[in-house]
Amino acid sequence: MSKLPVLEIFGPTIQGEGMVVGKKTMFVRTAGCDYSCAWCDSAFTWDGSAKDDIRQMTATEIWDSLQALAPNNFSHVTISGGNPALLKNMSDFIDLLKDYQINIALETQGSKWQDWFYRIDDLTLSPKPPSSMMSTNFDALDDIMTRLTEADRVANISLKVVVFDDRDFDYAKKVHKRYPHVPFYLQVGNSDPFTENKSSLTTHLLDKYEWLTEKTVAERELNDARVLPQLHTLMWGNKRGV
Amino acid sequence: MSKLPVLEIFGPTIQGEGMVVGKKTMFVRTAGCDYSCAWCDSAFTWDGSAKDDIRQMTATEIWDSLQALAPNNFSHVTISGGNPALLKNMSDFIDLLKDYQINIALETQGSKWQDWFYRIDDLTLSPKPPSSMMSTNFDALDDIMTRLTEADRVANISLKVVVFDDRDFDYAKKVHKRYPHVPFYLQVGNSDPFTENKSSLTTHLLDKYEWLTEKTVAERELNDARVLPQLHTLMWGNKRGV
Ligand code: SF4
Ligand code: SF4
Repeated sequence: MSKLPVLEIFGPTIQGEGMVVGKKTMFVRTAGCDYSCAWCDSAFTWDGSAKDDIRQMTATEIWDSLQALAPNNFSHVTISGGNPALLKNMSDFIDLLKDYQINIALETQGSKWQDWFYRIDDLTLSPKPPSSMMSTNFDALDDIMTRLTEADRVANISLKVVVFDDRDFDYAKKVHKRYPHVPFYLQVGNSDPFTENKSSLTTHLLDKYEWLTEKTVAERELNDARVLPQLHTLMWGNKRGV
Repeated sequence: MSKLPVLEIFGPTIQGEGMVVGKKTMFVRTAGCDYSCAWCDSAFTWDGSAKDDIRQMTATEIWDSLQALAPNNFSHVTISGGNPALLKNMSDFIDLLKDYQINIALETQGSKWQDWFYRIDDLTLSPKPPSSMMSTNFDALDDIMTRLTEADRVANISLKVVVFDDRDFDYAKKVHKRYPHVPFYLQVGNSDPFTENKSSLTTHLLDKYEWLTEKTVAERELNDARVLPQLHTLMWGNKRGV
């Protein structure tokens, strides 16, 4: 059985953002990313700092860890990263979760296609805005969107753009316009992903959420959008593993 | 054209709770409720205090008000109350919104059926827990759920239970168990719906959200549930008309 590079397994908790916001879920975080976003809140997955924590695990070993944490106490698993779409050999783990009737969510920036995307129940494509300092490969994203649309998977996918500033907001409009048939989410960026002062972080994030909401409701091109904060950050601050 | 008793029309804003949380929308609030929940945050819709503000409006008049507030700047309208399901003659307004390709959300406690439920895009049934001091008519709710399920409307509906305390939580589990095929949302109750101290309200609501999240993730019977706060209250406190 092939192995996956795993950095964190935790839960049960809730999904704090995006298309299944609020959903009870377990998290599996894989190592490695082809991006290096300026504000990445999971830089330890790719910057080498947690290199020694990476475990090469089979699907069965990951399943055993999930069951040890929450015996029969979940029906949903979220695979995050890093960019889990770098891992061609995700199929064994997906097969195993499907065998146990577990629903699967996964988030990727959309830089790379994998055939197993067709089998993800809640697939979030989250292309990165200018403030990330990355540049979007729209050919790759077009290809992903075309495949998923032609396979009738639109009900299982969404686009999510994190917004820090006005330029990001314009980028978000452009992405929505390019794929108008795909459910579209705007998300408040966390510009202070390491502070431990939870109450000032909460106030700051709610102010930014209000700013983003006001911009969105004023903008005709975003009539169909949804705007969300990160609920786990509001609740728990920047704590890891919750 | 028949008239509806309207108390508030406002927007554009976002939906702060439930199945389309974060969605850009306009609100139309109708007057009248067959319940009188202990903690009702819209008691002015039924307690007589806003009696003189009720306007009897045709569908066209409501549409004109919406357009005056947000010319072509919305694609989604939320009808709330009170209990809008008391209004048999909602059809003209629904017809008109459908003609303009507007999606429609509506929330009701589920005490009363209307044939126009079949035409609501996002229908939230929100039966009230013990802390409301109301008692649920499960025959009526069974009937509503059976009709909507048989008409293949499950993708357009959800159940939402507001939770203030442990007894409410047990009630929520019971509701979810009775209709396991219907998407299920738990929502934090706002036990202080009139305070103007926004920052203490935010802290209190986030603490309650954490409490409800922890109870939910510990509970096997709620593996499929989603847990949400009221985002508009976190953002704007108890202000009306946002
Ligand atoms: S794509 Fe995601 S994981 Fe990769 S650097 Fe950007 S924010 Fe971090
Ligand atoms: S059903 Fe809703 S509007 Fe009616 S009293 Fe209860 S909370 Fe208020």
